[in-house]
This record gives sequence, C-alpha cells and structure tokens, in this order.
Amino acid sequence: MDLTVISPSVEHTHVTFPEGVQLDCGAVLAPVDIAYRTYGTLSPDRNNAILICHALTGDQYVAERHPVTGKPGWWERMVGPGKPIDTDRFFVICSNVLGGCMGSTGPRSLRPSTSQNTNTQADPWGTDFPPITIRDMVRAQRKLVESFGISRLFAVVGGSMGGMQVLEWAATYPEMVFAAMPIATSAFHSAQNIAFNEVSRQAIFADPDWHGGRYWETGAIPARGLAVARMMAHITYLSEEALTRKFGRRVRRCTDDGSTSPSAGALSTFGEIFEVESYLRHQGSTFVRRFDANSYLTITRAMDWMDIGQEHEGDFAAPFAGTPTRFCVVCFSSDWLFPTSQSRLIVRALTRAAANVSFVEIESDKGHDAFLLDEPDFDRTVAGFLSGAAEHAGLTNGKAQG
Amino acid sequence: MDLTVISPSVEHTHVTFPEGVQLDCGAVLAPVDIAYRTYGTLSPDRNNAILICHALTGDQYVAERHPVTGKPGWWERMVGPGKPIDTDRFFVICSNVLGGCMGSTGPRSLRPSTSQNTNTQADPWGTDFPPITIRDMVRAQRKLVESFGISRLFAVVGGSMGGMQVLEWAATYPEMVFAAMPIATSAFHSAQNIAFNEVSRQAIFADPDWHGGRYWETGAIPARGLAVARMMAHITYLSEEALTRKFGRRVRRCTDDGSTSPSAGALSTFGEIFEVESYLRHQGSTFVRRFDANSYLTITRAMDWMDIGQEHEGDFAAPFAGTPTRFCVVCFSSDWLFPTSQSRLIVRALTRAAANVSFVEIESDKGHDAFLLDEPDFDRTVAGFLSGAAEHAGLTNGKAQG
Repeated sequence: MDLTVISPSVEHTHVTFPEGVQLDCGAVLAPVDIAYRTYGTLSPDRNNAILICHALTGDQYVAERHPVTGKPGWWERMVGPGKPIDTDRFFVICSNVLGGCMGSTGPRSLRPSTSQNTNTQADPWGTDFPPITIRDMVRAQRKLVESFGISRLFAVVGGSMGGMQVLEWAATYPEMVFAAMPIATSAFHSAQNIAFNEVSRQAIFADPDWHGGRYWETGAIPARGLAVARMMAHITYLSEEALTRKFGRRVRRCTDDGSTSPSAGALSTFGEIFEVESYLRHQGSTFVRRFDANSYLTITRAMDWMDIGQEHEGDFAAPFAGTPTRFCVVCFSSDWLFPTSQSRLIVRALTRAAANVSFVEIESDKGHDAFLLDEPDFDRTVAGFLSGAAEHAGLTNGKAQG
Repeated sequence: MDLTVISPSVEHTHVTFPEGVQLDCGAVLAPVDIAYRTYGTLSPDRNNAILICHALTGDQYVAERHPVTGKPGWWERMVGPGKPIDTDRFFVICSNVLGGCMGSTGPRSLRPSTSQNTNTQADPWGTDFPPITIRDMVRAQRKLVESFGISRLFAVVGGSMGGMQVLEWAATYPEMVFAAMPIATSAFHSAQNIAFNEVSRQAIFADPDWHGGRYWETGAIPARGLAVARMMAHITYLSEEALTRKFGRRVRRCTDDGSTSPSAGALSTFGEIFEVESYLRHQGSTFVRRFDANSYLTITRAMDWMDIGQEHEGDFAAPFAGTPTRFCVVCFSSDWLFPTSQSRLIVRALTRAAANVSFVEIESDKGHDAFLLDEPDFDRTVAGFLSGAAEHAGLTNGKAQG
C-alpha cells in the first residue's frame, strides 16, 4: 500500500471536531477535520464575518497563493483590502468542503480504526466514505463558524456549488445568515447537469488505474479518467462565444515530446491539434495533480442530490418561509450550465416566501465561469449588495475594530 | 491477432472503386469500397435521385431494419412510400461515409499489402488510416452516384455531419446538385464542438483496451472509453428541456447484477442512480457493439476540419458564387450543438452568393436530435421543399417511371 500518491503534500490549517457531523444519510462521521483560511479581522462584536463557499473543484485558498499549485487564490480579484469583499471591513472565512481533498475530512482521509488491534495500519475511506449532501457540507461549516464564537454570519456568498451551499445555509440556519448571495447556481441539479456529472464519473471508472477506488494500493491514481472528467466539465464552464473568442479554429503542431507549438502546417489526423484541444489537455493534466478522484465522485454526487424542495413536495418556497435573510441572486446571461432560468426560479420561490430579495442578471459572454473572471458589473453588484446589507446590519462603515 | 472483434458481422451491399479516391491530405486511398442502400426506383431519365447523407454515428440503413442492431432505420419516419421523402416518387441513395465502419472503407478495413510476400496476413488500417475530410466523403459519394449513371442529383439532404456533406456537395459539385437541404448543421466546426470531440477522443485513448489503436491484436475493444465518448456526445444531442421532460430527477435502484429498477429508496453514493444516468449508460453500452473506435476518431476529426471558408480566407459565400442549386436551410430552436446562429450564417453566406435560399427555424425543445424525432413542422418543411423543387426541376408529380 502506497499512500504517498494520495497523501496531502502540505499541511492545511484545520480544526478537528471529535464529535463529528450527523449526516443526511443517517451515519455520524467522526471525527471531522475542517480545513479553512481566514482574511481580515473579526470585529469585537463578531458581526462582520462573511463565509465564502467554494465550487466543486475550489478550495479554501481564496485570496492567497495556493500551497499546492503555486497559483493565485481563486477569488483574489474579489476578496482583499478595498476589493468588493473588503477585508479591511469584513472577516472572511472559507473552508474546504466536507468530502474535499484539501485538508477537510474526505475519501482520502484515514478511516478511524474499528478494530481493537491498534497495530493495524489505517486505510483511507476511499469509496466507503459516506455519501455527503450539500446540507452536510453546511452542517460542518456551521461547526467551524461557531468555533470562532460567531452566532450570526453577516453574509454567506458563493457561486455554482458554492451557491447551493448558500441556499442550504439560508434554508437550514436562517437565524445565522443576515445576508445571502447565491451566484450562478440552482435550487436543484437538473437532469442535464446530473448527466454531465455521470459521464465524468464513468470516465473515472473506465481508467485502468481506478482499481475500484482503491488506487492508493497500486501507487498510481486514475489520472487519465480524472483528466477526461475535468476536460468535459471545463467545456460546460465556458460558453461557445468565449471558446470562439479565445481559440477559434487556430491550430498548433504536436511535437514528438507531446508539447505543442503554434503552426499552420499540413493536415494530419493527430500530428496537429486545435488550440482549444491543447488548452483542454492542459486543464486536465494540471487538475489531476491537485484533486482526488474519490473526492470528485463524492462531491459531484452531493451536487446531484441538491434539491431544496425535496422535503417540501417540490415547493421551493417552503424552505424559506419567514426567512429573515436578505438575498441577492446573481446569474450570467451566457451561463448554460446553471442557466438564468434557474436563478429566476430561486427568485420566484424567495418572493413567494416573502423574502427580501434582489436579482441581478449580468450580461456576459463568459459562461458559467464568469463569476471567477473579470466582470466589472459583477464586482459592483457584490460590493453594492454587501455595503447596503452592512448598513442595514448596523455595521460601522470603517475598518473592523480588531 | 484476433480480427473477429472488429470484423463486420454482416455483409453490406457495396461497390468497389479500384482506382480509389484522391484525398485532401494528398494521399490516394485505393481501393475504396462504398457500402450503400437504395429505396424507390430510379426514373428512366435518372433525374429523381435524392442522396441522403448520414450523421457521425449514422449509416446507410435509413429506412429498413438495421442488420446489426435489429432496430428500425434511423430515418424511417422521413423516408418511405408517401412519406416526406417519398420513395414512390424519388430514388433515395444513402451510403456509409468513407472512414465509417458499416461496409465502406475505413480504419478497420484491411490495408492493401505493400509487400511482395502475398503470404503476409493483411493488417487493418487502424490509426494509420489516412485523415479524411468531409469533402473526401463527398468525393467517394460522387463515385457511387456516377456508378448509377446519375449526372445530377435531384437533391442532397442531411442533418448534422450529413448537413456538412450537403454543403460540401453544393460547393464542390454545384452542377450535380439541383436542390440542397442542410439541416441542423454548420459551415465550420466551432471551438466548442471541437472541444467536445476532443474529450470523446481522450476518453477512448484513456481506455486500457485502446492499445494505441491496435486493439484487434488483443481481442478486446476500448468499449469503456468509447461508451464514455458516446454518453457525453449524447447529452449534446438533446436539450436541457428534453432531458428534464424525459427524466427529471427520478431515481432507480441499482441491483447487484448491474440492472436497474425504479425505486425511491434510501440515499447512497452509488447504490441508487438517477434515471438519466441509467439511460446514458444504456446509450453507451449499446453503441460500442455497433461502432468502431478508430472510425469514431477518424470521423470526429473530419468534422473538426470542416470549414467551408478555409480556402477562401474565411469567406463563406465564395464557395457558392454563382451556384445553380436551390437551398433550404433548416435548424431547430433548442439545438445548442449546432445553434441556429450557425444556420443563419449559412443563409447569409448563400444570400451574398445570390443563391436561391429559404430558411426555416423550427420551434422545438428536442435539441439537436430534433431532426431524427417526431416534429410535424419539420416533416412539412421537407415535403414542401422537395415538392416545390421537383416542380421547378420538371419532375412528373406521379410515381417514377421505372
């Protein structure tokens, strides 16, 4: 057994909850580690905290260099001093989701020994990791939030799967959420989105290095299958317009060592590739170095189960009845993975629940990923909503009193 | 070497062209077999022939039971006596495309021996099969058409990749095409479509049974990779609305033998699947029994290279300058693989070329596959255009004089 292939390469700041988390599936997962990062300063009243919820393949490294990839944080343009989510003013928390692979308890965590023989080497959970829902992720986040002595979050903000968590936060712990900003998301996962997730799972299962999910035993990871999954998902994050603008039909020549260089050379089946192909291959190959295949399965499944009306006979308004939370629902016109119709459904449900809700559809041709990219209208929307909500919450306009 | 895994299970009607076909890549592919089916009767004047061009995974079995799958022909609802493409009136030809795997020369055809030693067993082409373009497919079809003594086709009709062939026919052999009906197609393959094709190819390459494309040597086919490719492609053929209507979020329980039955049982990671997942798995597993992986690679690459303006500095009108052909361009409102904007681009180009062109956008929520499904407006469009064109062509309105 070679655990090095799935072992974290860095230590992540985390808190351990020995009592664990009660899961929707009925099991209690214990102990539970939640890895997190914070930015800014918690005010003495502990009333200026914003929880940021990350998307499927995101993590807690929002606004700093990523310790594994060395790249900038995934939302540095949004979070920082003077930025739309202003860390001079707000205390920002982001945690790696339950089931993830960046320090929170997930499928590659070692399973607590059930045997009396303490000499037995612990095995990772792998595919035996219990099924996780978006609400389970939120339950774990709540423990983290409370560990800071915070009884009410000023705001919960997130895009895509992060937005699902925002909705579950508002539905499950309404008194703990002053303001909520679900972005480019949905109240339920559609048949089309489930279908894409299923193809990505089948790609992983088809990899010879998958080994029924116990790939650590062979010292290899199902890298090719995971890369195919990522490549496909990546297409769904963009738009036809964005792909055309970025790559069009430009080609580059493949060299023998697998690298590519721009070229407009002769026609051949695989000696020359389109730039969009080169880009996707790069996306796939870099992804597998930072993400665990079993986490990918666990988290995509959690998204598939997202259906906030499920316990209310399909009534999406019922979970928000009497909500005290102020909502700002944001979507992007060219997002076809979480189309604007799904955000409109959220807005209609919140309106029926008599919630305080505003709705912003941003004109963009960047597709689903627009929330991660340079969209000045979106920046202004985030900054404006948070400022207005802060005023209503009675937060001082200056820096937090640290 | 076990050629049985890739050998055709049935004999297909075909014609052999010993001189072969001059390809866009510069090579001459010889000999070339073209497998075909015909329906109806060729008139004494040989002026009532309609060539139907099939899509990526289609074949020549348009309007009869498929000899491999046992299923009805892929366009039986459109082609037959009294149907929109009326075989009481027209002589319908459909051939398996060059590079295909249903009897026409393609990657699983045996490669002509280049050695003097005639005892050497011939190898299939495999990945050494020369790269094929849509125009190469059309060149091969032209030989077939001429072998019937037909100097001008009354019409060329096809959807998706079939529509690309329609455009290449009209551009390459304008005097041979009286009427052309490109359906749900494009004058070039977009970056997004290339991206989807690339993911499907990577899924095949990732299969351990791929063996660098020489899978026949091991007696297995890269079935899992090809199934993943098909599953992903299948999502792109439908629409979000169609998937929601057909499957919604209904679940079914997995049984131990891999079969499924409807269920609304307990939450588990993989013990229960959504109906849309079950459907996709079925689509994947049935596809691999009838389609060759190397053909899939060859044909998807041909689609990627489709760019009818390429030799005219991106001018899509130039290839059609002075065209005598009457066009009817058809698209479907919910088709996101070949969006209506791409059909509009064709119409604008044809208009600039002063062509006789009509344009019909059919309201449908069935996505790209709408051209294969029950769409009465589409049936009326096909029947109406062909009737009008037949009148202009001076074809008698009654049955062909056989």
